[in-house]
Amino acid sequence: MPPPDDSIDARIAERDLTLTKPPGSLGRLEHLTAWLGRWQGRACPALDHVRIIVFAGNHGVVAQGISPWPASVTAQMVANFESGGAAINQIARVGQAELRVVPLMELRPTADFTHAPAMEEAAFLDAINAGMHAVGEETDLLCLGEMGIGNTTAASAIAAALFGGHGGQWAGRGTGLDAAGVAHKGAVIDRALARHEGMLDDPLSVARILGGYELAAIMGAVLAARWRGIPVVLDGFVCTAAAAPLARMHPHGLDHAVLSHCSAENGHAVLARTLGLSPLLDFGLRLGEASGAALVIPLLRSAVACHTGMATFAQAQVSGRA
Amino acid sequence: MPPPDDSIDARIAERDLTLTKPPGSLGRLEHLTAWLGRWQGRACPALDHVRIIVFAGNHGVVAQGISPWPASVTAQMVANFESGGAAINQIARVGQAELRVVPLMELRPTADFTHAPAMEEAAFLDAINAGMHAVGEETDLLCLGEMGIGNTTAASAIAAALFGGHGGQWAGRGTGLDAAGVAHKGAVIDRALARHEGMLDDPLSVARILGGYELAAIMGAVLAARWRGIPVVLDGFVCTAAAAPLARMHPHGLDHAVLSHCSAENGHAVLARTLGLSPLLDFGLRLGEASGAALVIPLLRSAVACHTGMATFAQAQVSGRA
Repeated sequence: MPPPDDSIDARIAERDLTLTKPPGSLGRLEHLTAWLGRWQGRACPALDHVRIIVFAGNHGVVAQGISPWPASVTAQMVANFESGGAAINQIARVGQAELRVVPLMELRPTADFTHAPAMEEAAFLDAINAGMHAVGEETDLLCLGEMGIGNTTAASAIAAALFGGHGGQWAGRGTGLDAAGVAHKGAVIDRALARHEGMLDDPLSVARILGGYELAAIMGAVLAARWRGIPVVLDGFVCTAAAAPLARMHPHGLDHAVLSHCSAENGHAVLARTLGLSPLLDFGLRLGEASGAALVIPLLRSAVACHTGMATFAQAQVSGRA
Repeated sequence: MPPPDDSIDARIAERDLTLTKPPGSLGRLEHLTAWLGRWQGRACPALDHVRIIVFAGNHGVVAQGISPWPASVTAQMVANFESGGAAINQIARVGQAELRVVPLMELRPTADFTHAPAMEEAAFLDAINAGMHAVGEETDLLCLGEMGIGNTTAASAIAAALFGGHGGQWAGRGTGLDAAGVAHKGAVIDRALARHEGMLDDPLSVARILGGYELAAIMGAVLAARWRGIPVVLDGFVCTAAAAPLARMHPHGLDHAVLSHCSAENGHAVLARTLGLSPLLDFGLRLGEASGAALVIPLLRSAVACHTGMATFAQAQVSGRA
């Protein structure tokens, strides 16, 4: 896990003190500028090429009746992303970001993880690789998200396996389960945890056995971004759970990522706190498809615009403190 | 106080249910769309003309040593706004909004309100009028903010007079006071409250006696926006305190306004809660000059873009719930 360029912080702080505002008065915007600069390795962070990637995959565990929507919706929504009709298309346009949609394994489902590991090792590595290759070279910021009917069940199972607790503590309403549906989902997760007991000590095994192709791809993308000096914006519960094995493998594994928002999905607030991630927004979103991650792009643009575009006290002939 | 067009809500909710997402999954973005539509009186809310107004004024109470910055900074920052060098200029550009700067009374200071009412009635009304006239006709959204060395002292005094508590409970660090400075500021406010005791029962008198020209202008702008069906975004502590007399005069006086953020200034969280305003962001900002209000413009653009631009289930041929 490459470290950030810590020398950048001092250079950004030095310029910040010259800008026409009281020191510290832009609060979290100042921290975001420093975070971008540190991981880009640039004292003048840039957001010229912002890429959003939505990874899509299907899940064998839908056979257990854990989603109120048919699995066919995954492919239909991929087509919707490609023709510009989904929420993420509209939010990406506002954020002036490039949107890339990556369906994994031609949307063939994983195995039902209540019976068998969701993925064989080769397919798991293929999905990680697909995620790594989707990142691209000329990227200043990477926003990640997913689409996959059934994937909040996979995310909850990963969270339970990595951080403890039973299925009921991590299961949520997903795309719209009622209370009985959530209870059933929790029980399905518990069956999976029991089925694979003894195989779940290693974070990568957790990701392979309980995850999904699009989750593995997110993990690969987060990792590739780290190597290439690209700061990452995580979306909601599924995206955070997908990246969590990296934090479990390395205490600073997600330092190059910020969490865009705290979703309305049951386990997200606890998962974020456990990972030490402070969400930028708390808007009760629960859509996925990188919608929350894309929503914060203009906030980051404002942070960078202030740092790079503001006049200094000397330039603007503004007096300092009395 | 004109009411909103409540018939809009049902029309917006009806379309929302046809869009390719689980119902409710865009959380607060959906509420913001409905709020914009209700106050614009349009089932298809628009954000074609977004105006930011920064009102600037000077304060006689700076004679009491309540700011670490000289009063001359107010005029210098107005010049900085006009030449494009301030934080608000950069954030306005990201939000694709028109920025208007309105210095009040040629930046002559109010009276020191520890000795006399800050404003005579005629000047107070002039400032309210200036605020009302700055709103403009063709505006879809109005973001308000201020600049004025010393104005957190005025804002704290207004909050104390409207909602009770002594100066020390409402005084904060402003642009950078130390603990002793904050204690002194609280004592100055207490002296003003004692000086004008018996004159502070009416919210308009509070605004006149303890406020400032730019605060009165904000109140006027909020009021004019209400009459013209223009939703308002409030900035931080000073802006919220400036608008607060309207809420004190009418229980629904600020229903057409949202609060952009909770600032780091001491009294803001309590003031927001007292007014029933839920901030959109909590970024520890404490700059003023409409910086927080402008920061949320793209979030509103995303809300509207999703509502107006997304495909319906029928258009995208996406299956409904199983």
